[in-house]
Amino acid sequence: MILSAVTLHGSLRRLGVDALLFNSSEILPSVNLRHVTGFTGSDGAVLITAKERHLFTDGRYGIQARNEARGFRLHVVRRRLDALARTVKAAGVSRLGIEASRVSHEFTTNLARRLPDVRLVSVPKSFLDGLRVRKTPEEKARIERAARCASDACGSLLERRLTGRVEKDVAAELETLFRRCGADGPGFETIVASGERGALPHGAASDKVINVGELVVVDYGCVIDGYHSDETVTCVTGAPTSEQRKMHQAVYTAHMRAIEALRVGMRVRDVDRIARNSIAAAGYGKYFVHGLGHGVGLEIHEPPSLSPLGKGLVEEGMVFTIEPGIYIEGFGGVRLESLVYMDRTGPELLSRMSKDLIVVE
Amino acid sequence: MILSAVTLHGSLRRLGVDALLFNSSEILPSVNLRHVTGFTGSDGAVLITAKERHLFTDGRYGIQARNEARGFRLHVVRRRLDALARTVKAAGVSRLGIEASRVSHEFTTNLARRLPDVRLVSVPKSFLDGLRVRKTPEEKARIERAARCASDACGSLLERRLTGRVEKDVAAELETLFRRCGADGPGFETIVASGERGALPHGAASDKVINVGELVVVDYGCVIDGYHSDETVTCVTGAPTSEQRKMHQAVYTAHMRAIEALRVGMRVRDVDRIARNSIAAAGYGKYFVHGLGHGVGLEIHEPPSLSPLGKGLVEEGMVFTIEPGIYIEGFGGVRLESLVYMDRTGPELLSRMSKDLIVVE
Repeated sequence: MILSAVTLHGSLRRLGVDALLFNSSEILPSVNLRHVTGFTGSDGAVLITAKERHLFTDGRYGIQARNEARGFRLHVVRRRLDALARTVKAAGVSRLGIEASRVSHEFTTNLARRLPDVRLVSVPKSFLDGLRVRKTPEEKARIERAARCASDACGSLLERRLTGRVEKDVAAELETLFRRCGADGPGFETIVASGERGALPHGAASDKVINVGELVVVDYGCVIDGYHSDETVTCVTGAPTSEQRKMHQAVYTAHMRAIEALRVGMRVRDVDRIARNSIAAAGYGKYFVHGLGHGVGLEIHEPPSLSPLGKGLVEEGMVFTIEPGIYIEGFGGVRLESLVYMDRTGPELLSRMSKDLIVVE
Repeated sequence: MILSAVTLHGSLRRLGVDALLFNSSEILPSVNLRHVTGFTGSDGAVLITAKERHLFTDGRYGIQARNEARGFRLHVVRRRLDALARTVKAAGVSRLGIEASRVSHEFTTNLARRLPDVRLVSVPKSFLDGLRVRKTPEEKARIERAARCASDACGSLLERRLTGRVEKDVAAELETLFRRCGADGPGFETIVASGERGALPHGAASDKVINVGELVVVDYGCVIDGYHSDETVTCVTGAPTSEQRKMHQAVYTAHMRAIEALRVGMRVRDVDRIARNSIAAAGYGKYFVHGLGHGVGLEIHEPPSLSPLGKGLVEEGMVFTIEPGIYIEGFGGVRLESLVYMDRTGPELLSRMSKDLIVVE
């Protein structure tokens, strides 16, 4: 973890600042603070100057911070903002870089009031989140463990009957299976969206009963040591109708074309375009209402963004989803999502479930 | 939910603004946006002017927002900030109230750039969170359901053996029991902290094996329909030593004294003081390193703050924790936490587990 912190010392000049500040609170945790320090508590602040690394936290996290955040000078304090301001002043900082996307307007207002002679400089989210975009082998291994665990759990789930069960119960069973596979827990609210509810791209499991003849979108992931997985399968309860088959086929083709096209160095928006054109060609263009995919790591949604507005290139070491979908209000939805690691030579699938239309009881 | 929105129309003048803006994103969700609208999606913005209520979200949440947020004009847009700025301009707003604690520095910077003629006014967190501090009967009922479910689950858990098991497995079993009791899931990372780990006030369950003769702090809660519960018990595996008994007794006495003293109209910091003095009198003063309690509702930590720095009075309708603790590095910890609803006539316990030193196998 210290590696990132060392990188940051060297980046201060390039960012045009004397020091860099991260702040993590329960309302607004900074996953970058965790990435830089290794500290996993919910409340803390980090100040990186040209020469020093400081970590501020409170009494609840003192012991934990000392164990997790090696190489930081630890300040266990009750009034974090005051301690932070004192340290910034003592270090002679005149331009202080802040993580503008992960500190609140209130925080910077209060900090600025304590530091009238210090200029706060917004450091772009893309720079700081970008420190996490190429995964280390250890990070890839954690994500892969999470992805395999979740795929195995889903495989076990689908061996049993879905028809007649409540969506929430199915989600609960899947999450219990995650634990059995060694996960720390689900990585986000498990989606089980059956029948018409499948038209909700983020339709968290509800009290609806799954009926025979319905499409069922199951979007799930787990967390291991802070790292996430993400995968979606679509099932049908009983023999699929021709319309159900047609929708699935359109999504399946788009999913496969995007994955086959993946190369290091291509523009991320071009990956989205390939899938989007494929779905449009099948006549469902207006029903694909979200981007094709997103990065996954310490956050369930992180860079890169594979969307029509996405910026940048596909890079070696990235981990992201490919998840085209079709959502028809009053009818239902199909989404197929795989988790991909970008190797130098091409994509490697971390998730393991089949993306066929899975017929279940 | 619309009730809060109506209250807000009437509060604009008092806040000295023409309109009020809430913004919710995955990184920085606004639970107040949810409270005001009923919309449970992760991404959206709300603008409340003297005459109108607008809700902005994207294609993933269009259908859901229409179903959940009654009485709002819905804008399903891809570029939320642009749409928001257009609507603010069209409404002739010159002073725009923002939820300063729940919008990022980046968000306000980008919004201000689009609205050079509009003054952004920080609305205090205490005002907006304060809208949620006195629970409605429906809110109380949800929290009570969650609290009973979690207490029942913990009761079942402790009928079984803890000695020899891994903390994480115990936490996983408890979370599975939450589901069986009807919860949507755990409300926070379940704490199972045994032996020396008990000295970590926020010691999430680890890979440590629970040994015989250890104090085990179990801090847990679940969520039902967005509302949380929170409770902590302390167990001992086998016959307690006199030091373990003494620590428990000190915390137990502080816990009971605080609850017995609770009255509508007393200062919240005085509740903390009663428990703190009690622990100090038992000789453990320096080991009680956090505040006595916190409000619980849509958030697991919300106002009021029962701490030495806490502001305001105990009010009818509040729901909060009473959770004194003692943490001794290298030895272990004891924490006892009850969830309390403040009725006009006195406290009502929502959590149900015994706060005795629970002897388990």
